[in-house]
Amino acid sequence: MRHPIAALALLAIATSAVAATPAAPPRTMDEILAAAPAEHWRTPDPDNLLVMTLETGTIVIELSPEHAPEHVANLRTLAREGYFDGLTINRSQDNFVVQWGDANGEDPAKAKSLGKAKAALPAEFSTRIRDGLAFTRLPDVDGWAPQVGFSAGFPVGRDPQAGTQWLAHCYATVGAGRGNAPDSSNGTELYVVTGQAPRQLDLNITSVGRVLDGMHRLSAMPRSLAPGGFYTQPALRTPIRRIALASALPEPQRPGLQVMDTGSASFDALLEARRNRADAWYLRKAGHIDLCNVPIPVRPAPDR
Amino acid sequence: MRHPIAALALLAIATSAVAATPAAPPRTMDEILAAAPAEHWRTPDPDNLLVMTLETGTIVIELSPEHAPEHVANLRTLAREGYFDGLTINRSQDNFVVQWGDANGEDPAKAKSLGKAKAALPAEFSTRIRDGLAFTRLPDVDGWAPQVGFSAGFPVGRDPQAGTQWLAHCYATVGAGRGNAPDSSNGTELYVVTGQAPRQLDLNITSVGRVLDGMHRLSAMPRSLAPGGFYTQPALRTPIRRIALASALPEPQRPGLQVMDTGSASFDALLEARRNRADAWYLRKAGHIDLCNVPIPVRPAPDR
Repeated sequence: MRHPIAALALLAIATSAVAATPAAPPRTMDEILAAAPAEHWRTPDPDNLLVMTLETGTIVIELSPEHAPEHVANLRTLAREGYFDGLTINRSQDNFVVQWGDANGEDPAKAKSLGKAKAALPAEFSTRIRDGLAFTRLPDVDGWAPQVGFSAGFPVGRDPQAGTQWLAHCYATVGAGRGNAPDSSNGTELYVVTGQAPRQLDLNITSVGRVLDGMHRLSAMPRSLAPGGFYTQPALRTPIRRIALASALPEPQRPGLQVMDTGSASFDALLEARRNRADAWYLRKAGHIDLCNVPIPVRPAPDR
Repeated sequence: MRHPIAALALLAIATSAVAATPAAPPRTMDEILAAAPAEHWRTPDPDNLLVMTLETGTIVIELSPEHAPEHVANLRTLAREGYFDGLTINRSQDNFVVQWGDANGEDPAKAKSLGKAKAALPAEFSTRIRDGLAFTRLPDVDGWAPQVGFSAGFPVGRDPQAGTQWLAHCYATVGAGRGNAPDSSNGTELYVVTGQAPRQLDLNITSVGRVLDGMHRLSAMPRSLAPGGFYTQPALRTPIRRIALASALPEPQRPGLQVMDTGSASFDALLEARRNRADAWYLRKAGHIDLCNVPIPVRPAPDR
């Protein structure tokens, strides 16, 4: 396997007598992105986008009402009411998560009012597989779920026997913190994965979406070595200026982002390009990819 | 699988008529660490420890002469000569690596002298499996290698057919950057994995060791959005005060660390505890663990 590109070329010659066109040469991810037609990109619904503003800039989160309808509805209410505005990033545990919300949330005397948002929600650890639920299955082996793949832009696990699908905990996945009771999350405490995919959280907590842009602003938060990575000194907590729902912003202030359609041929090509890198640097192609190693490309909308 | 602890208890009762002792209840990682006897911990050889000092504190790297003898020998020479002292951290690419070395290394007029260290080394992408080479095999499925497990404290892949073993690219793995030629690394450019395990690098580059302590000082480095995550402005580069070989330091200045013996019964128990979490918070046990999700515990030596 030292020269897989040469081997592919031989294969193309050998089959050219019968094939109408010779096999296309392997492409790099950059080449695939540059060639992807407009219809292989989708524009996220602004009702599903949270725009978080820190002093350093913005972070854009895409919510998945498909996987967590009650939590997403509550997050829209919380964002519309400005619940998160002025709260803080309270936790950065190395190789695990960054978390934000009300640092005084557990003190009834000091906790910020939820306004019209619900204090209690059902656990939404998985959703039912239904006709029309997108699923691009990854053929590669995975130890955490019977099947893995992508559903409308999100990395997911799937159990056909149980009839369930769930958002997988990959880098940049956003979830709703909970206590020991499964239904103890309401979206007021959100975390994002900043380390090695903690897939053991899958089916144990409600994932609500994924960071599309600005992830580097969260992943570089100074780590706390206190238990759970919580900042014990209030001064270490980064203030959140605002978390707004994109649909509540004037159009020019909305994030102008597009996400590659994970059901498109360009995404299929990208999966193969990541499984077997075409870049000359790679002397050995892995012939494999893990769910959480797959980048889901995001780009500025061409008209912005 | 909603109540696996209850199921285990039933199993213990059912077999207690024939078993001499009932099955032990599942333990958490904290319980396993607290109970691990002294002989389940090893003290790394100070000839294999690099101590990196930044303004914010120290980072301790354990080198693996087993997997990269020539690179490790060169790194000892480089450290003894103070090669890295005054150089900088030059790269922080989100969800990938942090890298350090000579920012002027590619400019012959400005590059720092390597002194007695070698400028050219052979590629050391894998080592031969030999009798006595430690290997605790992980039974869990892995898509990147025929076998995975732990060898003397390091996460490794193994190919019994090829007779080779290699350090796997997990969070905190340290490697030697190279150009397009396989033998173009010499240890002067080192990187550490700060994101989702980039296992596609396995067998494509020489890994030299693993960060044992202080990883949070590297993982929180501000990301650069320039190509490759390189800092384009010199002012953004973090200075390295010193990288010393622990054996060259006076004994009181050496890191007093112990690492769990990955061949010990305590480590076996830890693997099982991570596969199926005993903590009450976990409603569903994963029944699986990926190589790079396994923490290899490090502690201060009891006599320090």
